[in-house]
Amino acid sequence: MLSDIEIAQAATLAPIAAVAGKLGLSADDLHAHGHYMAKLTQATVNRLHAQPARAKLILVTAINPTPAGEGKTTTTIGLTDALNQAGYAALACLREPSLGPVFGMKGGATGGGYAQVVPMENINLHFTGDFHAITAANNLLAALIDNHIYHGNALAFDQVSWRRCMDMNDRALRRLTLENHTHTGFDITVASEVMAIFCLATDLADLTRRLGRIQIAVSTHGQPIYASDLQAEGAMTALLKEAFQPNLVQTLGGSPALLHGGPFANIAHGCNSLVATQTAMRLADYVVTEAGFGADLGAEKFLDIKCRQSGLRPDVAVIVATVRALKYHGGVEVADLNAENLSALASGVANLEKHITNLQSHFGLPVVVALNHFTADTAAEVALVQAAVEALGVRLHVCRHWAEGGAGALALAHTVAMQAQQAAAVKLLYADDLPLVDKLTTIAQAMYGASQVTLSALAQTQLSQMGEASRGLAVCVAKTQYSLSCDAKLRNVPKQHVLHVRELRLSRGAGFVVAICGDIMTMPGLPKQPASARIGVDADGRITGLS
Amino acid sequence: MLSDIEIAQAATLAPIAAVAGKLGLSADDLHAHGHYMAKLTQATVNRLHAQPARAKLILVTAINPTPAGEGKTTTTIGLTDALNQAGYAALACLREPSLGPVFGMKGGATGGGYAQVVPMENINLHFTGDFHAITAANNLLAALIDNHIYHGNALAFDQVSWRRCMDMNDRALRRLTLENHTHTGFDITVASEVMAIFCLATDLADLTRRLGRIQIAVSTHGQPIYASDLQAEGAMTALLKEAFQPNLVQTLGGSPALLHGGPFANIAHGCNSLVATQTAMRLADYVVTEAGFGADLGAEKFLDIKCRQSGLRPDVAVIVATVRALKYHGGVEVADLNAENLSALASGVANLEKHITNLQSHFGLPVVVALNHFTADTAAEVALVQAAVEALGVRLHVCRHWAEGGAGALALAHTVAMQAQQAAAVKLLYADDLPLVDKLTTIAQAMYGASQVTLSALAQTQLSQMGEASRGLAVCVAKTQYSLSCDAKLRNVPKQHVLHVRELRLSRGAGFVVAICGDIMTMPGLPKQPASARIGVDADGRITGLS
Repeated sequence: MLSDIEIAQAATLAPIAAVAGKLGLSADDLHAHGHYMAKLTQATVNRLHAQPARAKLILVTAINPTPAGEGKTTTTIGLTDALNQAGYAALACLREPSLGPVFGMKGGATGGGYAQVVPMENINLHFTGDFHAITAANNLLAALIDNHIYHGNALAFDQVSWRRCMDMNDRALRRLTLENHTHTGFDITVASEVMAIFCLATDLADLTRRLGRIQIAVSTHGQPIYASDLQAEGAMTALLKEAFQPNLVQTLGGSPALLHGGPFANIAHGCNSLVATQTAMRLADYVVTEAGFGADLGAEKFLDIKCRQSGLRPDVAVIVATVRALKYHGGVEVADLNAENLSALASGVANLEKHITNLQSHFGLPVVVALNHFTADTAAEVALVQAAVEALGVRLHVCRHWAEGGAGALALAHTVAMQAQQAAAVKLLYADDLPLVDKLTTIAQAMYGASQVTLSALAQTQLSQMGEASRGLAVCVAKTQYSLSCDAKLRNVPKQHVLHVRELRLSRGAGFVVAICGDIMTMPGLPKQPASARIGVDADGRITGLS
Repeated sequence: MLSDIEIAQAATLAPIAAVAGKLGLSADDLHAHGHYMAKLTQATVNRLHAQPARAKLILVTAINPTPAGEGKTTTTIGLTDALNQAGYAALACLREPSLGPVFGMKGGATGGGYAQVVPMENINLHFTGDFHAITAANNLLAALIDNHIYHGNALAFDQVSWRRCMDMNDRALRRLTLENHTHTGFDITVASEVMAIFCLATDLADLTRRLGRIQIAVSTHGQPIYASDLQAEGAMTALLKEAFQPNLVQTLGGSPALLHGGPFANIAHGCNSLVATQTAMRLADYVVTEAGFGADLGAEKFLDIKCRQSGLRPDVAVIVATVRALKYHGGVEVADLNAENLSALASGVANLEKHITNLQSHFGLPVVVALNHFTADTAAEVALVQAAVEALGVRLHVCRHWAEGGAGALALAHTVAMQAQQAAAVKLLYADDLPLVDKLTTIAQAMYGASQVTLSALAQTQLSQMGEASRGLAVCVAKTQYSLSCDAKLRNVPKQHVLHVRELRLSRGAGFVVAICGDIMTMPGLPKQPASARIGVDADGRITGLS
């Protein structure tokens, strides 16, 4: 069997101008990065944004991820290819991969099998440099802060809350003491507020405004200090200006795809840039986008943060599940997942049911289930899941896009396209004016099935220090992706669990407060055997070992 | 008067394929980055390197820099434009700018006036992402080291010498304590060994070999531990593969220019990549390259490190000086530099004379002086410098390329081209097999006029720990650029000074030992009023305030 990188490298790609042509764009609309990647020019983005949106918006989300693998990104890509094969003009809108996990456990984030975006080596490594630009903008602000203190601290910085970032899994940088004796640390770039702002800003002017609004510290007089107090937002915008233009690539099936921005969904808000989505809505009839990890994290934030701020509303959600993952939620260990186990599956299907009813009842969002097929799945297992899903009034399609590309997801495509044409009354989970803790409680109880929310002493102090600054802001929960709870070990649908908030971070520029729950870390580590040891460049200059 | 960025933004640039056409290259040889920047493909580089070099190599260097400004980069660009105007097929070969100084005191590094490489905003900010790739490769290795220790430290790491890096002037990161209690720090990317390796490797295979050879620590058993012990070199090469292809841009005068790599010359070896220079030698009849800061730093390392390792030899050196800077060396303060002062000039010209005789006598290198004209220079002042230079048997030309572009450096171009056609017996300063301290003493006495070299207790310990590992390696002196000594305050030609070595760092992959002298820092800081406050993006999306 060929590896993902071998499949990708064997493919013949279309010149990027030809891909743009499918969207009605010409080479003049592009800022090329080699033959197969391009940014849309700012002029093109501006021209498109002046037009009304025409697309139906399809949100791909998933059950809680497991070591068995679900395939949300492959489904997003396979569904887009299938829609195009079926004659619906579709465009995928995805996040860019982070470098960190490429060298760790997870590997790349460009799909797999015959459902990939390409060129996968470039996209998984530096791509067009967007995350490096975000890292630089974040760290320029950090340097300006410590430099201001060094040169006399005229603004009377006291508690500096701004952290540095790096697009690397480097756990040793989580907590450190600087030369000037400050205690601080690095987050991974995809968890930074600059990443969030980049992905939520409507245009360059809004980007600048939001960057200026970042709260970086509290003064000795108890007053908030903002990035604008250091006149940092102009230079930060200059660093982000080129990156802010959405990236165009293609799928192995020849569909166009915009990849732009990439906050993680467990420690950040988990959606590609608003600019890319708004651009996509004017370039196609169907935009297929994904939100990271399970629907408890990615979909909730897609709706309550990205849709709330922008006015966007999805027309339909696709929830991706696998028989294997549902058996894992039903208690089967990884080594035993290839054996049929109907009783474990009957138990584990509850995780899928919870995500379906969450999206239906709390958001009024029509749902279709994509059951991503693995060869070991038995007919009885598939029938069991199908029956459970249809009992909720929801359609399920078995998908084989990993092995077959778009042809493996045609039935899903037809159902999704039809559903997207129906009017949906999509609503949000909580009101803007609810107090912060009540918002958190609503998310925890409604989405996670938690009995209550508790705050650490630190979080309580931070909440009272925030005071009025948190008013009207959304909540961005940072918690494990592996469980509906904040404890990674609790599979399926845990009962009577508590959402424990360890820390609160004000992201004023992004328009939300991050609630760090359980033991989730905003800087990941590498595993004992990092993937980096397998990666190299062969004698012909081709990258090998990337997955 | 227009600012540099206004001049650059007002220019009409040629499509990059047209610039490539001047070198006999086609669009197929390029990996475009937008309309005006491109990388040469690896296949093109490989094809060219299989051909013999045909160019004469012109090294542009300078007197010790002063706050008055000398204009080495503008002279490199102006001379290239002048050579092309005069019918000599010339190609400039320069370093890429570092992001750090752009937000600090120095600003960008793309020349000035009508002697600039463009598009200056892109080149000065992220350009094609090379430095970000170098930063990532460096920091992946650091993450792998701390991760190995975290997971049980099977290799028995003890003294970890590998440091992280960032392309930012962030002094607070110089020394820090990690979560795992290790004391370490960040250097600016342009001072990293990965940058040096990137700039000295002959090809991708050599790049991988050198990366593997990096010594990262000493084990508890006293054995050296290398990057290859963590199998890091493959993934590091994968991160550097695209960056390793030289970048093609144009000057305002329409000359082609390769910009690639960019170690600082005060804290690193100061020359653009060997790959770019070797490529350039096969694309033009005259290659004009520069080495950073004064000839004591950049030119010495260009010869004793880059030329020694590669076999390259320059045919002629151009030393850039200004009347203003020589008056500053003669004791005049910045505020008084516009007034004629022949006696100070007569004293300060000694700095120029020292650099001329250094290159002539120690390296056997023919020299031409470029006196970069400022409007306040008087005829008597110019005549004084001219007489002093001609007394050494050296030609001097007054240059006006800043105001006039290539037309302002035509006389210089003719002299340089003629001189480059003469056979020169260029030699290196010290033998490979000299002990390390003797190499240091040779550089200090011959180039800097120092009376002796002293080593701190730390440097002595490091020297003895290095033992045989330093055998055959070159020396890369890190010291202030402002003085021939290691004390920035000693202008002109200081006497009876001592080169004090504070720290020695083994750069085994780069093939040298860095000797950190005086109080030079490998991570710069920002000034009290950082340039970032003036930088922004206007309503039309144009970057403003960059200098």
